[in-house]
Amino acid sequence: LETHRLKLVIEYDGTEFAGFQLQGKGERTVQGVLEQTLKRLSGDPIVIHGAGRTDSGVHALGQVVHFDTSWKMPVDRMARVLNGALPNDLSVRSSMEVGADFHSRFSAKQRTYCYLIWTKPQRSAIWCRYALHEGRLLDIDAMRTAALALKGSRDFVSFASAGGSSRNGTVREVRTFSVRDIAGGRFILFRITANGFLRSMVRNLIGGLRSVGLGEISPRDLTNIADRADRSLNPCAAVAPNGLCLWRVDY
Amino acid sequence: LETHRLKLVIEYDGTEFAGFQLQGKGERTVQGVLEQTLKRLSGDPIVIHGAGRTDSGVHALGQVVHFDTSWKMPVDRMARVLNGALPNDLSVRSSMEVGADFHSRFSAKQRTYCYLIWTKPQRSAIWCRYALHEGRLLDIDAMRTAALALKGSRDFVSFASAGGSSRNGTVREVRTFSVRDIAGGRFILFRITANGFLRSMVRNLIGGLRSVGLGEISPRDLTNIADRADRSLNPCAAVAPNGLCLWRVDY
Repeated sequence: LETHRLKLVIEYDGTEFAGFQLQGKGERTVQGVLEQTLKRLSGDPIVIHGAGRTDSGVHALGQVVHFDTSWKMPVDRMARVLNGALPNDLSVRSSMEVGADFHSRFSAKQRTYCYLIWTKPQRSAIWCRYALHEGRLLDIDAMRTAALALKGSRDFVSFASAGGSSRNGTVREVRTFSVRDIAGGRFILFRITANGFLRSMVRNLIGGLRSVGLGEISPRDLTNIADRADRSLNPCAAVAPNGLCLWRVDY
Repeated sequence: LETHRLKLVIEYDGTEFAGFQLQGKGERTVQGVLEQTLKRLSGDPIVIHGAGRTDSGVHALGQVVHFDTSWKMPVDRMARVLNGALPNDLSVRSSMEVGADFHSRFSAKQRTYCYLIWTKPQRSAIWCRYALHEGRLLDIDAMRTAALALKGSRDFVSFASAGGSSRNGTVREVRTFSVRDIAGGRFILFRITANGFLRSMVRNLIGGLRSVGLGEISPRDLTNIADRADRSLNPCAAVAPNGLCLWRVDY
């Protein structure tokens, strides 16, 4: 049976998912829900491959997956058909046919994540799903200085969590790392683009920037933590997953 | 025991609430959760009064409540203390002491609601909690014309749902009614301010505007529906509660 390869850009609210990747323990994952839905609609057992393995609670506006199938659903109707069958917190933004050499993970040139902090003194009932609450004063200029100093190619092992794969080593190239206040200063939005990320790297980096913003460490201290390339010498805690969103993947 | 009157501005994600008002049937309401928390913290049985009785699923960024209490909690610490005890989807934005003549509902000069529509062809997993999805083309100029024509004092009974109180009759004054596209056209945001609203009035008005936007009726048709002042002659369905938010109450 002839198969073709399809690429989907998907969006999810990570709150009720135990991360992207299938766990095989009955947990609700993005991969599991999407594969079940595809199997139910197409009749085929389908295995999907994602560009990034987002952790439990992390959101995505532009996660990319690919899969091979003999399903004859026209590609221009596929997003609508899937959106009619998927649960509310998972949706398909677009679908297209790609060549057999396309791989959502290995063909990716770079990935962009955003992290959102709600900065008002009182927490927000509406924004708590999508933003970390940090009501103490954050020095945005110091955080921006520290972020810019982390740009470029370097060993990011100080910001990796245990359990990550090291097949490709721990050197990554951070290409943009911006820090800005939005919505009249109610939020701080971090945006980071790199050729790839180690496990929990964004949450550890933002945790470091938060420590800088609170004056617990200096921007130079954070660069030194990176330079030591030793995870056990990084005193900064990772931030919570709710503020993190996989924004886009570029090919 | 001497009591004083307190005013709170509160915020909630309405998704998991059966509306604002206590139902007495074991349903989870904003009033019920807030009263239970106040009673637990203060030791007093406390009855709160809200400015607007939002329906099930409707959100609030600026709902106002007042209550009388002998609780000695300093008012400048109250928001923080309550936010530590309330569930994630309900928070206190601010607290202040007010005079005994202040009433959250009867002292209100005007209320503002916002309604959000997600206009992209595919639904959004992240925005579905806070925005109605309408992927068909909406004529924003026609909707704006229709909204402006509804400004002013008039009988809004054609846009009221059954079961509403008519103690104050059905004439209300709509003071502003704006329609604009935001975030690069991904959303349409409606914003309406009036001295008061009949039950489900905003959702019925936005339902009428949606019919105008889809070309099912003309702006003039919508004015005629209003002028007939007969609910049974309004063919437009109310829109879903998820896109609606009580934005602010002015005193």
